[in-house]
Amino acid sequence: MKAAQLFMIPCPIVTVEHGENANHTIAPHVINAVHKLQYFVVERARTARRFIKATQHPTAIDQLQIFELDKRNKSNGLSDFLKIMKDGVSIGVLSEAGCPGIADPGNLAVQWAHQHDIQVVPLVGPSSIILALMASGLNGQNFAFVGYLPNKKNELDQRLKQLESIIHKTQQSQIFIETPYKNGFLLETMLKSCSPNTKLCIATDINETSEYIKTHTVKEWSNVTIPDLHKRPCIFILG
Amino acid sequence: MKAAQLFMIPCPIVTVEHGENANHTIAPHVINAVHKLQYFVVERARTARRFIKATQHPTAIDQLQIFELDKRNKSNGLSDFLKIMKDGVSIGVLSEAGCPGIADPGNLAVQWAHQHDIQVVPLVGPSSIILALMASGLNGQNFAFVGYLPNKKNELDQRLKQLESIIHKTQQSQIFIETPYKNGFLLETMLKSCSPNTKLCIATDINETSEYIKTHTVKEWSNVTIPDLHKRPCIFILG
Repeated sequence: MKAAQLFMIPCPIVTVEHGENANHTIAPHVINAVHKLQYFVVERARTARRFIKATQHPTAIDQLQIFELDKRNKSNGLSDFLKIMKDGVSIGVLSEAGCPGIADPGNLAVQWAHQHDIQVVPLVGPSSIILALMASGLNGQNFAFVGYLPNKKNELDQRLKQLESIIHKTQQSQIFIETPYKNGFLLETMLKSCSPNTKLCIATDINETSEYIKTHTVKEWSNVTIPDLHKRPCIFILG
Repeated sequence: MKAAQLFMIPCPIVTVEHGENANHTIAPHVINAVHKLQYFVVERARTARRFIKATQHPTAIDQLQIFELDKRNKSNGLSDFLKIMKDGVSIGVLSEAGCPGIADPGNLAVQWAHQHDIQVVPLVGPSSIILALMASGLNGQNFAFVGYLPNKKNELDQRLKQLESIIHKTQQSQIFIETPYKNGFLLETMLKSCSPNTKLCIATDINETSEYIKTHTVKEWSNVTIPDLHKRPCIFILG
């Protein structure tokens, strides 16, 4: 019996409406790997089905076994689904967008695989974090992705000061995201609270025709026209 | 006149001997972008030429304009090379392996582009840091890449303690690399100095047939057979 493998499968990072045209960012060998799988652990079933269908998977989509990670109790029922790997059946893990296991709960399936001595195979694909950092010009030799910052003004101010202090001490670029409808508030707060010489990269609509990636100091940003970021997926980097 | 763009072009991360077979990790639209360019800023000209040739670039390789980043003075002459972008000529940036601007000096060209209001376009491709993290099962919602650790035993011990303290306080996974012939010393030191419950992911030969990615606690690693890592490219993650 061939040993099962757990494939970590990246999918496009563009917004849902453009999903089907976006597979040009996915290498053919990733598509081939998807086509060999019948079992998937996914963050959101609807998006996953759309991506798998767009790859022209040879199996009818409703015949595939898709396990959606529970929003509240993410590991609920996961072990039961994964245990088919002990019979030699490989499984794919799909994120909502980009690389599974990065900025999402896909690592729960990976932990199970390591515990049961099953090989985990990461496939190459888009990571908005890495794409933004590549195009930012900021330090890519020492960087951190810190997820979401606090929502409340005071706590956000404090957290920004803390990140600036890390940058000052270690030159470590600090990467973070925000719920798209709150981008305006975060940006406004950064321009008010951060030191004028701190560099800020704004990266939005990565891999879309409207892609915009610019780095300026906080002081410079106050003097240029900033595009409307409302409801657009953004990566922010301070450096 | 069409405005010039600076393309950040990922290349395969496998070792040089396997280079020409490795382009399956590069999506066709990246290859297409490479074929439209005549000017490249690269970390190492020999490797860059080999990759460009393997893409079957329509121009003879010796006709391409290749600027190698100076090892000592990385920005030496770079501005002179880049200024052709003001005449509408696009340029590509290539790393030695993986994504340019990540764990390499490619960001120098990007900084120039931002200063001269030239669009920077990051293309999708392999990042060994992200691939290792995806397959590690460790926290991908908060992580840092910290480059190389110190070489000297005492300083290395101290740095490891510092990284463990960050993990303890913030659950931030800590990713780092080592010059391949020193992997053994680093690993030995980690197994002695780190807390038994700290998790360690060892990822080596990523994207090769000999790929090996495993996560155990430091205590568990002391009881399993560790593959020989000497002179093999490795990513280490503590979590």
